Amino acid sequence: MEFVIHSETLKKALNIVSRVVSGNPSVPVMSGFKLEGVKDRLIVTGGDSDISIIKTIDLKDSPQEKMVEQGSLVVPAKYFHELIKKMPVNSLITIRKYNKQIFIKCGDIETTLSGLNEEDYPAAADVPSGDGIKVKGSLLIEMIKETQFAAAKSETRAVLTGVNWVFGEGELTMIATNSQRLAMRKASLKTNLTGSFILPIKALTELVHVIDKHDFIRIFSTESMMTFQSEGLSLHSRLITGNYPDISRIIPEEAVTEVVVPRLRFLEGIERANLLASQWKHNNVTLALNMDEKIRLTSSTSEIGQINEKLDTVEVEGDRNFKISFDGKFLAEALKSIQDDLVTLSFGGSLRPIIIKPYNKKNTIHLVSPVRASS
Amino acid sequence: MEFVIHSETLKKALNIVSRVVSGNPSVPVMSGFKLEGVKDRLIVTGGDSDISIIKTIDLKDSPQEKMVEQGSLVVPAKYFHELIKKMPVNSLITIRKYNKQIFIKCGDIETTLSGLNEEDYPAAADVPSGDGIKVKGSLLIEMIKETQFAAAKSETRAVLTGVNWVFGEGELTMIATNSQRLAMRKASLKTNLTGSFILPIKALTELVHVIDKHDFIRIFSTESMMTFQSEGLSLHSRLITGNYPDISRIIPEEAVTEVVVPRLRFLEGIERANLLASQWKHNNVTLALNMDEKIRLTSSTSEIGQINEKLDTVEVEGDRNFKISFDGKFLAEALKSIQDDLVTLSFGGSLRPIIIKPYNKKNTIHLVSPVRASS
Repeated sequence: MEFVIHSETLKKALNIVSRVVSGNPSVPVMSGFKLEGVKDRLIVTGGDSDISIIKTIDLKDSPQEKMVEQGSLVVPAKYFHELIKKMPVNSLITIRKYNKQIFIKCGDIETTLSGLNEEDYPAAADVPSGDGIKVKGSLLIEMIKETQFAAAKSETRAVLTGVNWVFGEGELTMIATNSQRLAMRKASLKTNLTGSFILPIKALTELVHVIDKHDFIRIFSTESMMTFQSEGLSLHSRLITGNYPDISRIIPEEAVTEVVVPRLRFLEGIERANLLASQWKHNNVTLALNMDEKIRLTSSTSEIGQINEKLDTVEVEGDRNFKISFDGKFLAEALKSIQDDLVTLSFGGSLRPIIIKPYNKKNTIHLVSPVRASS
Repeated sequence: MEFVIHSETLKKALNIVSRVVSGNPSVPVMSGFKLEGVKDRLIVTGGDSDISIIKTIDLKDSPQEKMVEQGSLVVPAKYFHELIKKMPVNSLITIRKYNKQIFIKCGDIETTLSGLNEEDYPAAADVPSGDGIKVKGSLLIEMIKETQFAAAKSETRAVLTGVNWVFGEGELTMIATNSQRLAMRKASLKTNLTGSFILPIKALTELVHVIDKHDFIRIFSTESMMTFQSEGLSLHSRLITGNYPDISRIIPEEAVTEVVVPRLRFLEGIERANLLASQWKHNNVTLALNMDEKIRLTSSTSEIGQINEKLDTVEVEGDRNFKISFDGKFLAEALKSIQDDLVTLSFGGSLRPIIIKPYNKKNTIHLVSPVRASS
């Protein structure tokens, strides 16, 4: 195998693919990048048994680049990536495999790296035929960012460490919960796929990093795998197996009180209160509404101090006299994931979860469970 | 004590002073900021037994700020700093001490923090009278940056963990070495102070952060302490005790070969070679000069690979045939600390240190010791 490529083109491809190459994978050869030359295309693959990224570069796009000899090789990812990153900008790099050695030449710089056994490198996942589901990159990124933070960090219930994607009639719903808080986002989508899939957080994080918000992404799925494709790029992720809890009955339908507040001002108040709430396991912050229609946020840490602030509301409906304690960190994360200027808070009593929604929108819902004030 | 201050003024002062407040100091009260109101001035002090910073703010500078009641207090630094950082931008903050409680009020935000015992807070170091030595901030920052990286990281010889400042007749010399490499920078300076002082790295790092390059800094010294003063700010640092080695005889006077190279191109080559030199304790990189007047840089890691590159020189004088191995990381750090486009490398043989100097300048010298190629 031998090819000539622009340093910047190769750097860009390795920056993307290297993100999913592990330094210590279960299959040793997967610590490398697989490079394949097929006709005029260079195919760069990296990944582990959970996730892989394949970047395809058309060497015909530039007159100086070329595929001299087709073939394939696997090169140690860490050394190769660092080396290519440090090559002079806007130079041409020639890469040639001879026996097990990989020669990398760039002007007066000559490097040899020992290749890994390309025969051992696992074959790429088959991509199902058809068009898949087509979705705008920007929408996919937005939906992922609005939900993934709410997934469980602990592994005690594996399904909760992922985000549940439910394809229904003409819509996609993403749900994440750690059983103390929940984030849900719906969007309309032309889809002939129905079913429920649990995506690992790592795949979603990488997806947000590698896809272009201006591109259309095609989604394909089998029972155990989901594939995302855009121009020159594909990402394959293993799905988490198991049944995701049915959350439809958790979301309260009726509220005792609804309050509209400016999102940023409220978030800043919660973050101040969190400073003195970190003593508690659940970052206890207390919110009270009085007849004056102002919200009072309070928190305290014994021997350190206390904070107490009043916030104007924009609109109040229902019962004007209540008090509820909750995990201020969870509430802050929900508020940060929303873009809108105003949010609606719904309360069903001091033992029911708080519901947070962007004002006048129905496609996003956050839930935060109450905590006992002294827990 | 009670005063009113702009949130941004207080945030800026705490950002500076908090850098030297330790979370777990030997004297517990030093985990706080000391705030003192003297006439119209607020004096904010923080630090530990090695280093302290005092920032003075004149509340007369703004019509909305004022010292309502003189006095002093000590407030837990971490909580106070985080809280003030999160206060609304461009607001006014009122701080009042009553008994041991500190009340912080900003609009509808009311906080109480438990104060620490200000009686226990150590008195500030006395600043010697006189004008001290006057030096431009930019020169001081430049000299520190060009030397401090070369100090020893390990504590085996305490004096080598600092930078030696030698005040001589009309000049200041800074020297740092870990006994395998050395950095030295001289500058002319009007000074009536003579003597040798060893400054801890922490003090130098903080100095670079807090002083303004446009300001003139005044330096005062006693045997155990050095003080740096500029408008509204002073930094006191303990000095390292002990005798700094006499390095005047280490610097070779004569060279067998002198080579001038473009600094950045050479640095990039060394950094590429370092990628495959990390297997060795001393990051062995080998440099050879041949009759063609080109430099060859090589390094290798067994079972991974090797790198070999040729570099054009700008000028060569003396013996054109030699080879030397050295720690590539030390050479890269020396090259990074230099700003000039060209550097002169002087070689005295494969067992003598390499000397690196900015081309045609005499006030900066770096030394890197050779290593045995197979060590």
